[in-house]
Amino acid sequence: MEALSRPIINHRGAEFHRFYEQLIEKAKKLFTTEGDVVILSSSGTGGVEAAVQNLIRPGDKAVVPVFGEFSERLADLLEFAGGSAVRVAAAYGDAPSIAEIEDTFRRNKDAKALFVVYNETSTGVAFRQLKQAGEIASANGAFFVVDAISNFAGDELPVDHYGVDICITGSQKCLAAPPGLALLSIGRRARKSIEENRRSSLYFDISRYLRYLERKETPFTPCLPLFYALDEAINMIFEEGLANRIVRHKRCSDALYEAFEILGLQLFAKRQVRSTTVIAVEQPENVSGKQFRETLDEKFGISVAGGFAELSDKLFRVGCMGQVNREHVLSTLAAISSALSMLGFENPKEAALGAAEEKLKGL
Amino acid sequence: MEALSRPIINHRGAEFHRFYEQLIEKAKKLFTTEGDVVILSSSGTGGVEAAVQNLIRPGDKAVVPVFGEFSERLADLLEFAGGSAVRVAAAYGDAPSIAEIEDTFRRNKDAKALFVVYNETSTGVAFRQLKQAGEIASANGAFFVVDAISNFAGDELPVDHYGVDICITGSQKCLAAPPGLALLSIGRRARKSIEENRRSSLYFDISRYLRYLERKETPFTPCLPLFYALDEAINMIFEEGLANRIVRHKRCSDALYEAFEILGLQLFAKRQVRSTTVIAVEQPENVSGKQFRETLDEKFGISVAGGFAELSDKLFRVGCMGQVNREHVLSTLAAISSALSMLGFENPKEAALGAAEEKLKGL
Repeated sequence: MEALSRPIINHRGAEFHRFYEQLIEKAKKLFTTEGDVVILSSSGTGGVEAAVQNLIRPGDKAVVPVFGEFSERLADLLEFAGGSAVRVAAAYGDAPSIAEIEDTFRRNKDAKALFVVYNETSTGVAFRQLKQAGEIASANGAFFVVDAISNFAGDELPVDHYGVDICITGSQKCLAAPPGLALLSIGRRARKSIEENRRSSLYFDISRYLRYLERKETPFTPCLPLFYALDEAINMIFEEGLANRIVRHKRCSDALYEAFEILGLQLFAKRQVRSTTVIAVEQPENVSGKQFRETLDEKFGISVAGGFAELSDKLFRVGCMGQVNREHVLSTLAAISSALSMLGFENPKEAALGAAEEKLKGL
Repeated sequence: MEALSRPIINHRGAEFHRFYEQLIEKAKKLFTTEGDVVILSSSGTGGVEAAVQNLIRPGDKAVVPVFGEFSERLADLLEFAGGSAVRVAAAYGDAPSIAEIEDTFRRNKDAKALFVVYNETSTGVAFRQLKQAGEIASANGAFFVVDAISNFAGDELPVDHYGVDICITGSQKCLAAPPGLALLSIGRRARKSIEENRRSSLYFDISRYLRYLERKETPFTPCLPLFYALDEAINMIFEEGLANRIVRHKRCSDALYEAFEILGLQLFAKRQVRSTTVIAVEQPENVSGKQFRETLDEKFGISVAGGFAELSDKLFRVGCMGQVNREHVLSTLAAISSALSMLGFENPKEAALGAAEEKLKGL
């Protein structure tokens, strides 16, 4: 928050050049890539749209596991760009298997790319077999694009090691900066293809961002306050250590999952695909979702989200990302337990908190 | 700057709804429009691209006065969207006449729109006959779109009164907030056409922003710190009064123009089309532009821009926008005069400052 209000400088001047160059170097380290990183002044969706529009030409086919709102949106974006999306669907709460993806490629040898949402914010499901998915894409000569908006830097994602050609994230999730920027890692192979494509958007023309990167500038006026905040957020990640940060997310989410089960709640995501950054819980039948969320907000100052679209009152979702820590987890659990009791859903608060404390030991 | 660091709130919650609703109402008042206003988390260029992509379908023809870098870019954007740009060119430093635009419409009866850059940042030229241009567009049943990025709220632009269907501006120019947002006013007729068009971009789909406006939300995560800063910036504009603000810009630019002439410098823009927000001055032949700008920056802490592209070392451009005031004008003039002297261009500093003070009296 403090970094946001550093003075606005000329984004075509030497001071910006020095700042931007070191920011991009740090971002590359965070993505663990030898490729390039571009930063767009847009939301994460803008970043996903940029990846799609720069890689996919009309007629191109792309395979997309679809298992929630954001992977649906990704498939729509592919079709917006004139591509055809080969959807590999799974029931909400689960993710498609590697075998299904492999099979889809067998039936679509001409697929140009595999686009995967790593963490489905809408259902609290993570696609856990990214490395294998990358191998399938590679074996089929397809690009591998990962939308990691809601778990990048909170979950494992060594970009080059996993064979990811383009990885997209947003500033406001696990990077823990305010919302406003999209970051994209661009591997060498993707860069070549992007530079050869004709694009329909100027603002999302990645080849232009890559060209301007050489002179340490952005093609259009950058959202400077957010650039400053991102810079500070990345510094804070390196101070903690990326590996420690990932462990912290895992342990906080483990504590939440365990405690929710003790409270007598049903978890929405299947055990093996549970997200470590968004915890989706089924709303108890006798407690109105809207009333529950309002009680939490008004009495305890804690915001949880409902489900998306038709799941709106069937789920509540708890964020477990960014600066999430022991106190956040315990106070959130205590508030949820109390709110449920107030609305007539009795639950063993002490047992749940005790189990969570056990999982959080030393954190 | 202080507003930037207000707490990040849930952009799907009641607190955001209240905030966003009043922000949009204030923005409408600023645009003096009965139409809608949408705010995009992008640079101004993103806003121009959105206007083009939402209004222009492949094959559509649009008339564009071209008299500098940004109007060239606008014509390019029209062609990116599959439209055909009918360029009405003027020499840099001047703007096309109303007669030329009228004549172009006579020869292109099927033109769907007139796109005008109000203030050419690259050459310091303002297109001064907006109202008449709007009448021509209207008489030809064409949409009238105005890119007012670098002078909106610093120069006259009563949107509805001038018949402007879409007006675009950015947060960082005369609104005097940090960079990061584009604002677009959307008139009723434009709204209808936009809602009927199929768009190629999701992020820049204005009809989606208009739909979400009804529930007081943005379709994608907004760049919240910038929304806060914009809100505060608009409050500050109303505190000053929009009319007073426009007079302040005019008087500060009058002072700069007069003083530069006294210093013996040539002004780049013709008198009748001079911008009140960007003052373009010809670089004296014996003074290197690069050295001049560096001297100003290093010795006096004052940044001026060079020219664009091939004009890079032929011009320097002085910003006269946002919070610009008497002290800014006088200290900038004094620094420019001293820097020129240091680089061997003798000039009458006292006379220039005296003339500027005269123009600024009472400000």
